[in-house]
Amino acid sequence: METSQNANTLERIFKADSVAIIGASKDEAKRGYQAIKTLLDTKYDGRIYPVNPKEKSILGLKCYPSVLDIPEQIDLALITTPARTLPNILEQCAEKGAAGAVVIAGGFGELGEEGKTLEQEIVESAKGVRIIGPNTSGMISVAKGLNLVGLQNVPPGSIALLTQSGNIALTLITEAGLKSQMGFNYYVGVGNEADIKFHEYLAYFTEDPDTSAILIYVEGLREGRKFLQQARKTTQVKPIVLYKSGRSAKGSKSAGSHTGALAGISEVANTAFKRAGIITVNHSDEMFPIAESLASLPLIDEASIAILADGGGHATIAADYLTELGIKIPELEKETREKLKAILPPNASLANPIDVAGGTDQNPAIFADCAEILLNDRNIQGLLVVGLFGGYGIRFAKKLAFKEEDAAHRMGKLVRKIRKPIVLHSLYNYAKPHSLDLLRYYKIPVYDSLEIACKCIEALSFYGSYRQEGPKKSNFHFTWGTKAVPEGRKIIDDALAEGRSALLEHEAKELLRLQGVSVSRDRLAVDEDEAVKYAAEIGYNVAMKIVSPDILHKSDAGGVMLKLKSEREVRKAFNKIISNAYKYKPDADIRGCIVSPMSAGGVEVIIGTKNDDQFGPIVMFGLGGIMVEVVKDVSFRVLPVSEKWAASMIDEIKASAILDGVRGRPPCDKAAIAKLIEKVSDVIEAYPEIHEMDLNPVIVHEESLSIVDARIILNVEGMEKRIRLSRDLIES
Amino acid sequence: METSQNANTLERIFKADSVAIIGASKDEAKRGYQAIKTLLDTKYDGRIYPVNPKEKSILGLKCYPSVLDIPEQIDLALITTPARTLPNILEQCAEKGAAGAVVIAGGFGELGEEGKTLEQEIVESAKGVRIIGPNTSGMISVAKGLNLVGLQNVPPGSIALLTQSGNIALTLITEAGLKSQMGFNYYVGVGNEADIKFHEYLAYFTEDPDTSAILIYVEGLREGRKFLQQARKTTQVKPIVLYKSGRSAKGSKSAGSHTGALAGISEVANTAFKRAGIITVNHSDEMFPIAESLASLPLIDEASIAILADGGGHATIAADYLTELGIKIPELEKETREKLKAILPPNASLANPIDVAGGTDQNPAIFADCAEILLNDRNIQGLLVVGLFGGYGIRFAKKLAFKEEDAAHRMGKLVRKIRKPIVLHSLYNYAKPHSLDLLRYYKIPVYDSLEIACKCIEALSFYGSYRQEGPKKSNFHFTWGTKAVPEGRKIIDDALAEGRSALLEHEAKELLRLQGVSVSRDRLAVDEDEAVKYAAEIGYNVAMKIVSPDILHKSDAGGVMLKLKSEREVRKAFNKIISNAYKYKPDADIRGCIVSPMSAGGVEVIIGTKNDDQFGPIVMFGLGGIMVEVVKDVSFRVLPVSEKWAASMIDEIKASAILDGVRGRPPCDKAAIAKLIEKVSDVIEAYPEIHEMDLNPVIVHEESLSIVDARIILNVEGMEKRIRLSRDLIES
Repeated sequence: METSQNANTLERIFKADSVAIIGASKDEAKRGYQAIKTLLDTKYDGRIYPVNPKEKSILGLKCYPSVLDIPEQIDLALITTPARTLPNILEQCAEKGAAGAVVIAGGFGELGEEGKTLEQEIVESAKGVRIIGPNTSGMISVAKGLNLVGLQNVPPGSIALLTQSGNIALTLITEAGLKSQMGFNYYVGVGNEADIKFHEYLAYFTEDPDTSAILIYVEGLREGRKFLQQARKTTQVKPIVLYKSGRSAKGSKSAGSHTGALAGISEVANTAFKRAGIITVNHSDEMFPIAESLASLPLIDEASIAILADGGGHATIAADYLTELGIKIPELEKETREKLKAILPPNASLANPIDVAGGTDQNPAIFADCAEILLNDRNIQGLLVVGLFGGYGIRFAKKLAFKEEDAAHRMGKLVRKIRKPIVLHSLYNYAKPHSLDLLRYYKIPVYDSLEIACKCIEALSFYGSYRQEGPKKSNFHFTWGTKAVPEGRKIIDDALAEGRSALLEHEAKELLRLQGVSVSRDRLAVDEDEAVKYAAEIGYNVAMKIVSPDILHKSDAGGVMLKLKSEREVRKAFNKIISNAYKYKPDADIRGCIVSPMSAGGVEVIIGTKNDDQFGPIVMFGLGGIMVEVVKDVSFRVLPVSEKWAASMIDEIKASAILDGVRGRPPCDKAAIAKLIEKVSDVIEAYPEIHEMDLNPVIVHEESLSIVDARIILNVEGMEKRIRLSRDLIES
Repeated sequence: METSQNANTLERIFKADSVAIIGASKDEAKRGYQAIKTLLDTKYDGRIYPVNPKEKSILGLKCYPSVLDIPEQIDLALITTPARTLPNILEQCAEKGAAGAVVIAGGFGELGEEGKTLEQEIVESAKGVRIIGPNTSGMISVAKGLNLVGLQNVPPGSIALLTQSGNIALTLITEAGLKSQMGFNYYVGVGNEADIKFHEYLAYFTEDPDTSAILIYVEGLREGRKFLQQARKTTQVKPIVLYKSGRSAKGSKSAGSHTGALAGISEVANTAFKRAGIITVNHSDEMFPIAESLASLPLIDEASIAILADGGGHATIAADYLTELGIKIPELEKETREKLKAILPPNASLANPIDVAGGTDQNPAIFADCAEILLNDRNIQGLLVVGLFGGYGIRFAKKLAFKEEDAAHRMGKLVRKIRKPIVLHSLYNYAKPHSLDLLRYYKIPVYDSLEIACKCIEALSFYGSYRQEGPKKSNFHFTWGTKAVPEGRKIIDDALAEGRSALLEHEAKELLRLQGVSVSRDRLAVDEDEAVKYAAEIGYNVAMKIVSPDILHKSDAGGVMLKLKSEREVRKAFNKIISNAYKYKPDADIRGCIVSPMSAGGVEVIIGTKNDDQFGPIVMFGLGGIMVEVVKDVSFRVLPVSEKWAASMIDEIKASAILDGVRGRPPCDKAAIAKLIEKVSDVIEAYPEIHEMDLNPVIVHEESLSIVDARIILNVEGMEKRIRLSRDLIES
């Protein structure tokens, strides 16, 4: 389906002028009653058509025996009837020209593979009517009064909400209503994503002029890569705040390679989300506050914040936590300090954090003066106010409340004028003073958790610098096969023709060489004379390893011998390796030994790829040995990766300083590693038959590297899914 | 001062029957007015004596020209006058037999060393009148109505609050008043701790029968070790919840040894606090909730929790987060599942987390039935209820509120009867429904942050298992010198007599040997013949190292030669080392070379000690090389440590699995490491002149270890502080 047509369809759904309620009921406990009641209560700006063959009217509205009896084309249907009735009803909806249908019934993909098949049948029966759900809590288009959820009193605002949990939607809507003046323009319970997927809603909200931020609660993505691609486009325009649950269910399925054993889904997802400019949230209590801040405030270009406090304790806590979050609390300009000095008492702290030291006790309007001085400082990109503001009228004297209100008006206008954000923490938030409502009216959010206020600053700053940097090259977009070369294609095809599910070591290395990687010219020797000949050509010392499609773990089979220094040693090694191999596996298909140069000393690293269930091909990087096996100090990226992006993987691991040279060792060639990771990415993109690749170890020298062992596993059955997961979605 | 006398004095302060307000005033803006006003408002159960030579009466109370004019002995004085007036006033207070004085004035130790001296003068002038402060916000004894802070409406309860920030006290008191029914019985602004220290207040609250939990906000401790010692005693009886701020100010001061470079204060403090049974809190918004939970609920013996939810989203978030916090969510007993099945709808999830799947929509009282079934399960030690409870009456139908209230009554009584806790998350908390107030009446806390509810579960479980385990051996108690032996004493004394600030390597090793550590018999050779002789005795290979008090970094001076295999090599090495040393430092005092056996292969570890500003001697453990230098994977303990406690340090580092044997290597002798750490602890305890000790590297073999290099730094000037910091406080 074309993008623009798609957008039109979603526009018809979200702005529906007519909606059929199929399964309409007079029973107040039933969804088919509640939906109509809610639409009437929310003053739906459109026509409601209850459908139920047994009723004449419901809640004063004429009731129709079937969808087909409705006297006009309908835009949208809400279907509350059971799963078995769906194919017939959806077909009728199609006949009626409906753009979409909200399908409440469960019992599909959430129950397993069989349910997924059922889902596909439903989608097909819909003949182009786009389905929200099934197994959805519904959808709401607030401005239109189109509320198909039954959640009353949704506070209006500019946040579009996408969730996979009805009760999280309820939580966020309740929270917004009770604690904020920001609210929602859309809510979609995406349900099972049988038809319309996360990324399609995302595309719609990206274009929607009334949406200023998108808030997502996701348990799992059906089309992870398309989601990333769309998210990357969306975040060029507006922020996405995302909470991913289901983190404790570890997703390391395929064993047998380091990457397989270590790639936890959530690590991969978090890296990918961040790369796509998404603000990820780990605590559910931060979801709404962060979305609210991003929907309301100017962004922070550089993470340089002033803290304005009316007590030392809050200032210290805020400074500690912002520092931990990587936010700078810079020195103030001299002029700023002088201006502050003029309005604050002598014992006030004029360094950042600023402690007014009682300077606002008689007149909290001074907060606004301080805010103006601070936000005009060129070192300062945003302001965090912490402490009692909002409570002066409660704590000290009632009349001070008016001064606080004055300050609120002035701070509100200041943010609009100066385009730098203020986030406020108030310990009187729960008491709901008017001044805090005023701040929210001006879209300055207020929190009673100091830590959450800091997290909002962090989010404004993360997203601000993301936008500052401009669009990223990485578009999560694979063009399968285009990077293949005929010789490479032949290696894969020959192996598959032989019925092998793995390349031999020298084949794997050859594939890398064909992609432009400088690898050692390993030679396959079929007898000891050849081995001696190749060893002489290469020059001593050499290493020798068994070559057999039946022996993957060469060391275990006694199939590796190193540091061979002479013809005699090579001959002895050849015979020993072959006899070990037959002992290990008597019926093994043994092709000989490869002879390769011994690589010089350096630092061992591992590069591996894997297929993630949600994102398709990913790559892992880590230092060889204990750092991967014991400390699990690794970094991940969704492929493809550029050299630059690969370089960030190298810097991301905890022990990366080892590559810069420690204990008097020279630095390693990190550029060569980054280039190699990019080439690995190219190989994966070139040959979709590759399931996993493991370069382990790679020894990195001062000005080069040596790939000591390379392993490539093929899997044709999984190829289709791999291709599907990373098929191109969006031109960029 | 004796403990019991101390306790009596604090009792007289906190239960004061008479209080003098020195600096009493008619000016409403002055503290000397507000204090009297507050005492009258809070119906202070005692006699108030305003003191001001210029007034006859204030607020209806007779005013006295000086303390001495008050017609009876006073228990307590609040002094609001400036610093310079203090010595005179305190002397008069002493004359009047006052037990204590609350000193508001600042300008002392918070300004630096000079201020500290001033403080000591004040304390001396007080002649035994115990001082709260100076630079304090005051103190409150709630039941007595003795409020010397000016914070009105302190909600009463059983939490004793100790802070170093007046506005954090205000925050917590405001929070309690707005969000809870639990409150405080005491508040102390400890100020500069010039006289009464944190641990003394702690001791008082430990004995106080009305205190059920102690909540502390601390920026820095003046007597860290005494605090730990008292805390260890306190936590055998009641919980301490502590937030430590000032974390971003890194406290690694002394360079030159690994321990010095890495010992961040907060890491040391956190480990020590945990060991003393203290619940440490990292986010300020968790302080009050966690204290409230601990003051209100039965503890959790084993971290095995049931989650009861009315929606999938909350259940998933709670399960994820509790898992991350190390809390188990175990299987339910068969009987439990059957009982739940009988009262919940067929689509309810009866595995843990339990999702009622609409089963409470018509009747939220079913929550209480579920709670009873779940808390009777033998696998379950506590219950976390998440979701809408409290909001059924708001969301669905008003009459459901009464069912919720019924459930609240029953859950409240259930917790009392069954002695297992319930913690509740409600997204309707902010709406303040009556049912949630009822729960709080029964001391079941309710939070609108799901994550904070989980953190309370974690705290109940941490402290529950701490109490379960019983008192710890480690009492943070040094008995300086008792473990010394005459030969060891002589080594130290001789070095000091020579004016040296470091022991030579063989001296350091000898000190360990004297403490029972098996070290290699290194021999000091003064010429090459001796070197050859010793090498023959030891047996080849040998290592040789320069011995000079002027060369601490032997390798840098070319003063180390390894793997010497013959007489010829030993002779050559001796001369080379000596000439290198003279080249490195021409005027060096060179004593010769030590000859030692080459140690076999194994895993390198580092053990080092350091002096922490707040806690005195501490020890660090880590794996040698990059794991310490680059990854900074180390663990810390406040000394002394037992072998068992040392063993926990070894298991604590991320890479500890390396010691269990990886990649086919045999496991290392972890018991030997633990024993060595204990012996290091003994050496430090034996000789207070030792400033720092570094064993680096220690090579650990399968059934022993070798201390390759040992370095001991002496410092007599710092000795007194070291001794003071870890002087014994409490018999145990």
